[in-house]
Amino acid sequence: MLSKEDNEFACRVGPGTPTGELFRRFWLPAMLPSELPKPDCPPVRLRLLGEDLVAFRDSNGEIGVVEAHCPHRGASLYFGRNEECGIRCVYHGWKFDVAGNCVDMPSEPAESNFKDKIKITAYPTALHGGVLWVYMGPKHLHAELPQLEWTHVPDSHRSVSKWFQETNFLQGYEGDIDSAHASFLHTYLDPAASPTGEGTTIDPRLKARDRAPKIVVNETDYGFRYGARRIIGEGSYNWRVTQALLPTYSRIRLIRIPAGGRAWIPLGDNRTMTFYISYHPDRPLTDQDLAIRRTGRAFPPELIPGTFIPKRNMENDYLLDREIQRTVSYTGIWGVNDQDRAIQESMGPIYDRRKEHLGTSDLAIITARRRLMNLAQELQQGIEPFPATHGDIYRVRAMDVNTTVDDFDAMIANHGNGLRAEV
Amino acid sequence: MLSKEDNEFACRVGPGTPTGELFRRFWLPAMLPSELPKPDCPPVRLRLLGEDLVAFRDSNGEIGVVEAHCPHRGASLYFGRNEECGIRCVYHGWKFDVAGNCVDMPSEPAESNFKDKIKITAYPTALHGGVLWVYMGPKHLHAELPQLEWTHVPDSHRSVSKWFQETNFLQGYEGDIDSAHASFLHTYLDPAASPTGEGTTIDPRLKARDRAPKIVVNETDYGFRYGARRIIGEGSYNWRVTQALLPTYSRIRLIRIPAGGRAWIPLGDNRTMTFYISYHPDRPLTDQDLAIRRTGRAFPPELIPGTFIPKRNMENDYLLDREIQRTVSYTGIWGVNDQDRAIQESMGPIYDRRKEHLGTSDLAIITARRRLMNLAQELQQGIEPFPATHGDIYRVRAMDVNTTVDDFDAMIANHGNGLRAEV
Amino acid sequence: MLSKEDNEFACRVGPGTPTGELFRRFWLPAMLPSELPKPDCPPVRLRLLGEDLVAFRDSNGEIGVVEAHCPHRGASLYFGRNEECGIRCVYHGWKFDVAGNCVDMPSEPAESNFKDKIKITAYPTALHGGVLWVYMGPKHLHAELPQLEWTHVPDSHRSVSKWFQETNFLQGYEGDIDSAHASFLHTYLDPAASPTGEGTTIDPRLKARDRAPKIVVNETDYGFRYGARRIIGEGSYNWRVTQALLPTYSRIRLIRIPAGGRAWIPLGDNRTMTFYISYHPDRPLTDQDLAIRRTGRAFPPELIPGTFIPKRNMENDYLLDREIQRTVSYTGIWGVNDQDRAIQESMGPIYDRRKEHLGTSDLAIITARRRLMNLAQELQQGIEPFPATHGDIYRVRAMDVNTTVDDFDAMIANHGNGLRAEV
Repeated sequence: MLSKEDNEFACRVGPGTPTGELFRRFWLPAMLPSELPKPDCPPVRLRLLGEDLVAFRDSNGEIGVVEAHCPHRGASLYFGRNEECGIRCVYHGWKFDVAGNCVDMPSEPAESNFKDKIKITAYPTALHGGVLWVYMGPKHLHAELPQLEWTHVPDSHRSVSKWFQETNFLQGYEGDIDSAHASFLHTYLDPAASPTGEGTTIDPRLKARDRAPKIVVNETDYGFRYGARRIIGEGSYNWRVTQALLPTYSRIRLIRIPAGGRAWIPLGDNRTMTFYISYHPDRPLTDQDLAIRRTGRAFPPELIPGTFIPKRNMENDYLLDREIQRTVSYTGIWGVNDQDRAIQESMGPIYDRRKEHLGTSDLAIITARRRLMNLAQELQQGIEPFPATHGDIYRVRAMDVNTTVDDFDAMIANHGNGLRAEV
Repeated sequence: MLSKEDNEFACRVGPGTPTGELFRRFWLPAMLPSELPKPDCPPVRLRLLGEDLVAFRDSNGEIGVVEAHCPHRGASLYFGRNEECGIRCVYHGWKFDVAGNCVDMPSEPAESNFKDKIKITAYPTALHGGVLWVYMGPKHLHAELPQLEWTHVPDSHRSVSKWFQETNFLQGYEGDIDSAHASFLHTYLDPAASPTGEGTTIDPRLKARDRAPKIVVNETDYGFRYGARRIIGEGSYNWRVTQALLPTYSRIRLIRIPAGGRAWIPLGDNRTMTFYISYHPDRPLTDQDLAIRRTGRAFPPELIPGTFIPKRNMENDYLLDREIQRTVSYTGIWGVNDQDRAIQESMGPIYDRRKEHLGTSDLAIITARRRLMNLAQELQQGIEPFPATHGDIYRVRAMDVNTTVDDFDAMIANHGNGLRAEV
Repeated sequence: MLSKEDNEFACRVGPGTPTGELFRRFWLPAMLPSELPKPDCPPVRLRLLGEDLVAFRDSNGEIGVVEAHCPHRGASLYFGRNEECGIRCVYHGWKFDVAGNCVDMPSEPAESNFKDKIKITAYPTALHGGVLWVYMGPKHLHAELPQLEWTHVPDSHRSVSKWFQETNFLQGYEGDIDSAHASFLHTYLDPAASPTGEGTTIDPRLKARDRAPKIVVNETDYGFRYGARRIIGEGSYNWRVTQALLPTYSRIRLIRIPAGGRAWIPLGDNRTMTFYISYHPDRPLTDQDLAIRRTGRAFPPELIPGTFIPKRNMENDYLLDREIQRTVSYTGIWGVNDQDRAIQESMGPIYDRRKEHLGTSDLAIITARRRLMNLAQELQQGIEPFPATHGDIYRVRAMDVNTTVDDFDAMIANHGNGLRAEV
């Protein structure tokens, strides 16, 4: 349960809000490179943390992410001309480079120096791991890009997609670190009907045995990892370990290969952009690997062509089919993400957490909120968030190990995988 | 005229509002049984008095009306599985019975007793007179179902329909007890074009003679009755008596057979559910009786298939045809209810009654408001509304009598019809 | 830059607002006569300065513009019957004449004098120059219709159109007196692709030479005129003079014949009605003159049939074509007004002028705001606006003169055209 005040504290992301300021300390995934396919291509509307922006790729291929409105008289730069190393407002021809400098002001007399006094907000950008990242915080802080494993594989080994969800980011993130729901929301009455491929269901081996795993949460510099220990025999255990990485990256599951990761980036308080990354650490993705992505059965959902809006959405009740629900799948809704979004959007744009009743299965959610809120509170007191400036701590990998070791810390120490100590 | 404060007092129906609390003392018509046709059928979204609810019919045929959101993490139970005597949230499998008890919580360890601490709001329901009723008030009050005449005839003698109106309930109810408007809004320039059948126009005999009837209002325990006395000859009168029954049932007209009744049930402050009941006290309805219902010429209006939204609505200007208005009917709008809704919705979602100018023809409206507001004020002082716990006082019938008795009370005493003293 | 308070002061137009009261001192263009084509034709919804109105043309051809809602119980008179010299509410038959008098009240007893106490707001109207004007101010003030040149030519010499823009009036008006933007927003990369005809581009002669004209603003009783002096040779000048007429009439350009004028009339704070008048002072318009109007390439824009809503609008991104923008026109948007509206609507419904940075090219805009705000401030102190009661001062004409006179006032004195001193 969160009080009304704490809920607002945790959810609001606009300029000046505590959580909004916290997000502004991190590099944030913002766009797919394919949205800005080549130099001087059309500019794109972008909204991040409640701010209206326009993104463009200049003649040199440099990417600019700038405030949406021309400082002259407020025309949207989305309608602008992207040409000759800058975006030019079509109202009076004022032109800005990717750094936000006004580089031409043809509506004023040639001798005027008015242009030198005009600058627009421009946020640093970076291409990293097949995603365009934006940094919206203070320039002097030396924020580092998170060195998540998927950002280090060749492009051929990775596939990235994004879409919109009509809720606050926290609802999405909470769904992502909630392993319990997979045993319900995403299941099938008829196992034969269950889609195959990454992200479609949890490991069937686990479903078939110990359904009340012991959960251990272990807080770390990047956020926390949590392990689920299931008894698989006399003195024999399966340990499954996943990570929640601040501010809102989710575990990278390696039970199946290729593996996936997600990020929940607030467009505003009531709308979120979900990024889904699937990758293989060691080899290119194959057609077969990618096949399920095209069906919408798992991640990403099918989208309305030309948009990032899922085809199955609130307006059409996610194409819920009650007969399918009765006979085939738990929900009667097509895809895994469609199922998640249906539920998360049904909670309302910002869920009122005064009404919730959390159980022991919600331990990771409770931890994630506390960590986020603590960082935001510390920032209010002037303490900058450690992970924002230490990209290397994100080099972790989830694990799935059969072992005789019962103790979490001992197991982590024994079964590292070379990326970092615990994995 | 109502002050801004009185208008708010009379119209707002959410939890904690005076009129909202008054409505919560009465059993309220809420659904058609056909919306929940059989055990374990799909759950249905329902909104009543500003509360979001979900209705379902369990495996035993019992009907549950419960709060819409799962108390665990707020997912809508509308997406739930209705199975094995309960509705199960698809997020984590929590399951609730029709009484609101949590009967299964598979996401928690088997030994947990968390489930015993969880209960959701569940409102008592009753099937009565071919309608599903809901009681949203305190459990200890022994509210009784109103024993309206139509609730006592066999199903074969009755037809019930419902639809939505985009206004506050009071605007609809006021239109219902406003006999004056029938001489204008629902009339035809060309009598031959006038639809025939119940509910289509007022009695042509009355229209043809005394157009300034004497109106007498008589307050009663159930609300009030009002009589219209028209001179039809030397010392000879026609008395037409109809009732307004609290909180918002309208007169049951018996000028034509079959007869009708209506109820105006608030979904929220700005949306109302209209119920229309037509019935014959003594015999089954025939195909001919029901024919006009299918045309939308009277009540109910034609609906958009699969919804309770009228086909002729605000979005399409009620398919107003100015040429028909010029040459055939007073409004140029197709059906009697379409005409009512067009006018009532044109007043705005909640009419600002500071702007009204009531005349003598509005006496019944003035009385209805006063009675409703008095009951709500009394309830604020702890006095429970009498009619809510005395269902038998609703056993009244409208009348239409030719007589030599000029005095209202004497006429009522002389011409009862066996249901209750006045009728 | 305007402070938040000044911006509100300048933009809000509802009853009781300073600028709203100022507009109420002027006759305002409100409708095209074709909207009320003949006696007893259907009534029309109208919104002006935030007030909901209904316009109708009675049996005698008189035009009434009255408050939208019947004072009895608030039904919209839009649904009313327009017959026998009055509009009759269809709810209970109350009837009103064009002056707002209640002339029939059939729902009340014949002997009642209630009707004599009922009156609705009715605004004086006038047909003037092919436009229906409405006056919403105090009756005793003797406001005069503005004697703009186009109001004095025969109907055959004039064409009038109107459409809606989804912004505050001031954004539209500011675009209209902003000569600088024409050199950008409305230009073509390929001159051969440029549409021909009035209103399509600025004079190509001017574009080809002196691009930094000297601007002189000259305040007058009707508002102000501003001249642009361009050097065309040794001691030889081109002077182009246009007018801004209070409250929101724009210059009448006579560079091309036929010429045009515009007016920006607030429907409410966030929606504006644009009137565009094109006319020839001396001869009827020809088919060729009118041809460009049908294409939407200039003014008016193409409209959605049966509405005043432009076909290219916010919902469809004005059918922006990026390939056309790259190769043919500055914006990739079809028509001149489509281009203006796209930009003005992209500023938001009411642009927050705290964010603007005005340059020397914005002198006319600064002047227009100051004049409007001064008049509104004076009115708050009881000083009535002079131009509202002096229609003759609007008899001015724009000019375009080649001359050796360098001084603005001397040039005006030398080159009048007979309408008034300066022209």
